[in-house]
Amino acid sequence: MANDLLRGVSIVGIGQIPVQKATQKSLKEMGAEVVHLAMQDAGVDSVDALFAGNMLSDELQNQKHVATLIASAAGLRGIEALQVEAATATGAAALRMAYFAVASGEARRAVAVGVEKMSEGLATPALAKALDAKTETAVGATLLSQNARLMQIYMDRYKVTVNDFNNFSLNAHHNARTNPHALFKDKKINDRTIRNSPVISAPLRLYDASPICDGAAAVVLARTDEARAYTHQPVKILSSSVATDWFRLDDRHDPLNLFAATQSARDAFRKANVHRSDIDLFEAHDAFSIMACLLLEAVGFAPRGQGWRLAAEKKIGLHGLLPISTFGGLKARGHPIGATALYQTCEIVLQLTGRAGKNQVKNAGVALLQSVGGAASTVLTHIFGM
Amino acid sequence: MANDLLRGVSIVGIGQIPVQKATQKSLKEMGAEVVHLAMQDAGVDSVDALFAGNMLSDELQNQKHVATLIASAAGLRGIEALQVEAATATGAAALRMAYFAVASGEARRAVAVGVEKMSEGLATPALAKALDAKTETAVGATLLSQNARLMQIYMDRYKVTVNDFNNFSLNAHHNARTNPHALFKDKKINDRTIRNSPVISAPLRLYDASPICDGAAAVVLARTDEARAYTHQPVKILSSSVATDWFRLDDRHDPLNLFAATQSARDAFRKANVHRSDIDLFEAHDAFSIMACLLLEAVGFAPRGQGWRLAAEKKIGLHGLLPISTFGGLKARGHPIGATALYQTCEIVLQLTGRAGKNQVKNAGVALLQSVGGAASTVLTHIFGM
Repeated sequence: MANDLLRGVSIVGIGQIPVQKATQKSLKEMGAEVVHLAMQDAGVDSVDALFAGNMLSDELQNQKHVATLIASAAGLRGIEALQVEAATATGAAALRMAYFAVASGEARRAVAVGVEKMSEGLATPALAKALDAKTETAVGATLLSQNARLMQIYMDRYKVTVNDFNNFSLNAHHNARTNPHALFKDKKINDRTIRNSPVISAPLRLYDASPICDGAAAVVLARTDEARAYTHQPVKILSSSVATDWFRLDDRHDPLNLFAATQSARDAFRKANVHRSDIDLFEAHDAFSIMACLLLEAVGFAPRGQGWRLAAEKKIGLHGLLPISTFGGLKARGHPIGATALYQTCEIVLQLTGRAGKNQVKNAGVALLQSVGGAASTVLTHIFGM
Repeated sequence: MANDLLRGVSIVGIGQIPVQKATQKSLKEMGAEVVHLAMQDAGVDSVDALFAGNMLSDELQNQKHVATLIASAAGLRGIEALQVEAATATGAAALRMAYFAVASGEARRAVAVGVEKMSEGLATPALAKALDAKTETAVGATLLSQNARLMQIYMDRYKVTVNDFNNFSLNAHHNARTNPHALFKDKKINDRTIRNSPVISAPLRLYDASPICDGAAAVVLARTDEARAYTHQPVKILSSSVATDWFRLDDRHDPLNLFAATQSARDAFRKANVHRSDIDLFEAHDAFSIMACLLLEAVGFAPRGQGWRLAAEKKIGLHGLLPISTFGGLKARGHPIGATALYQTCEIVLQLTGRAGKNQVKNAGVALLQSVGGAASTVLTHIFGM
């Protein structure tokens, strides 16, 4: 793809609220709150456009048209507002739309907001709509069952056990303990907790999966050449990329080969002009421990069949070779779908600006974000730097 | 908003299939078919990105993640694919996303595709999700009831009758007769048909409302400076704009004042550097006759309270002062929600390139498209020229 952009895009404000098991706030209240927080952080009282990421409100709240709902609730009458969806990668799609708006010159300031309220109704069957209704969901497939399948294939092919994945969850939960916005900030777990957790879709155990929860987060984007008017520490979006794979797992030559992740990462590295070895931290889409493992391999941080070793050898910790899930990740901060990538973006901004507190990765200069839609049929990759 | 775009964007290919009451084809088959038609029209076998507009498949087909579903079904593995939603203006939002992708330099060629299959399940309650679930839908409001309300307020304030709106539907049905893709191409109606049609939500009669139907349409966009490599008659997108209003009708000072339509039109005229008087045809969002009337007033083609006169005095016909719904409009071509604005874009391309056959508007040089989301809380305006 061409990339002779007119202008760079930077993040100049962030806003997030604590992820909760169930909040009393409505969808629009949550959305408006984080939009205000991000605008306050950027020191602005207006934006040109708002892009909202939400996946499940259609089924769970009987609500579509969420972008305008939030813009109106936030008092931003008049501005552009559009909603975007890419299944479980939806938050990253909202970020990319806002990036488009600023990069194209259509907006000087745009907010990307993600919101999800999964505590009402049944989120798990609603999430299954990310798969092919006619040939996958209709015969009982869910995102859980598809990830379980990937895990089983992986275990069989590479002769590893479920416990070889445990350190993904341990690391996530450890980092969540010092993140005030994390769902599991008060939960202490150890290897036994994971070993003893119930099997929810064999071989996946409860602690291999991210939780159902409510949350919202937002970021304000502006042109890089104007970013310092808003903050003395703008964070650049060095690149934004999306790639897709055959929609159904069954149609792929090798389901463990996350083509869309490899492809979008390659494109993002090229456009950002950075190398994999430049990455100081990786906010991976650890909705399931197997997915974190496969992404490490797809991006090339580990050879095929070896991604689990990075966790097992504790190289993914805050002081490790490649820190991942630095604020708890999807597993322990929580995975309120449409909001997830916006939480991750907020966390990356805190890391790159040295405001990550006890979760700080030393000398964090370049960060990678990957967001997985469905059974990795859509993957977005974003790279950030100072 | 800023508009110092790096590059212009043009339409280089179109694809549409006949609107039908109910098709046997699946959502992804319909989507893939029009994507192929549009790519064939542009003479390309690849695109960089696909943006899909769909509003109702979540409820009606238990299907989300539609953009990647279509890309995969079309054999376009690897490309970017994202879905966008703006309630009943969804198709126009997909067009804007594709415009963003090309204008920002992120894609050289992008396809915008809209698809809707309303024949399965109950479309009308699903459409009501465009309103505020907690305070509007919960107390029985639908898009039908909100438009009925607008019509009643209008009739009372301006002392007009339901029959003063009849020529909107008559004109639409007349133009649909010669459009092979129109749902009502074989239906002949007259003023009596409308007068005798049942009241569906007082004072709205059946013939004041657009029909439930299935349809899909797509366009391929490319950089204007490369457009002639694909076709000798590229059509420029002179501008693209979105504005929003307070979400709920109840929160607006005057519900007959379609602020978002006025605002996005003003912005679109300014960015395109054209004047209202330059417009040769207007594809309005005539989902309801009252909406067509209010849009004519919001854009400034008629003074407040006088929009209906343009229809009553037959100025909106193909040879009139301001032709609208030139291929049948939402009323008679049909309104398969997510596909509607893409159908309209295809029709505008046919008009501006002199390929509209019996529906041709003479010397059509500049065309206006407006797309209304919900109770006009979101309005997109696009202007096209050669």
